Amino acid sequence: MLRKEYDHIILLAHGSPDPLWKQPFEALYAQVTQTYGENNVSLAYMEMTTPSLEDAVAMLGSTVKSVAVLPLFLAVGRHLRHDVPTQITALQREDLHLTLLPPIGDDELVKKAMETAVANHLGKV
Amino acid sequence: MLRKEYDHIILLAHGSPDPLWKQPFEALYAQVTQTYGENNVSLAYMEMTTPSLEDAVAMLGSTVKSVAVLPLFLAVGRHLRHDVPTQITALQREDLHLTLLPPIGDDELVKKAMETAVANHLGKV
Repeated sequence: MLRKEYDHIILLAHGSPDPLWKQPFEALYAQVTQTYGENNVSLAYMEMTTPSLEDAVAMLGSTVKSVAVLPLFLAVGRHLRHDVPTQITALQREDLHLTLLPPIGDDELVKKAMETAVANHLGKV
Repeated sequence: MLRKEYDHIILLAHGSPDPLWKQPFEALYAQVTQTYGENNVSLAYMEMTTPSLEDAVAMLGSTVKSVAVLPLFLAVGRHLRHDVPTQITALQREDLHLTLLPPIGDDELVKKAMETAVANHLGKV
């Protein structure tokens, strides 16, 4: 069961011309689906890598009415302020509502983990 | 004191045409320097945003001989396989050695935090 008001979450990574680039996102997706199954969560890419957001939406079952898009990005720039909202607007339907969430880099746990990762390189005070 | 063999660490983020994009990286840097000071760690950007990696290297004190570059990226693609190594090669000097570390997204703590962040959206099993 999903928390909050969504039927499904699409994890959206940037995409890259480098085929090896998507491995960590696929690994994250595999780890999550091992616990939660594949019904409630998909993985898609904004550009240059498939499946696209459009592909992921096309694969959704007809019972899905409300989808959250969780960007696997560290910060909000042009892509999350313009490109992804434009993609999402084009995919909205009367029977399917998509909501863009803040990027995963904005999550307090992730921010804290990055601080600790940097601190681990810097050593003890 | 830095752990391991480096005198200094440069945190290297991607860069963006969107001036607001760098805020989370500046916040991470501010948080880290609050504990460790600004002597051992810098923040730089690969493209489109200043300071560049070249700027950050130019600011280093003359006692710094060995620098680690820690990419604030989630995955290794064209940028970390080609563009950043090219920048680093151009900045190597006889008296200054730069080492490219794996990206912060590869850190086990960060990977685990991203899994938990996604799981928190998906809810209880």
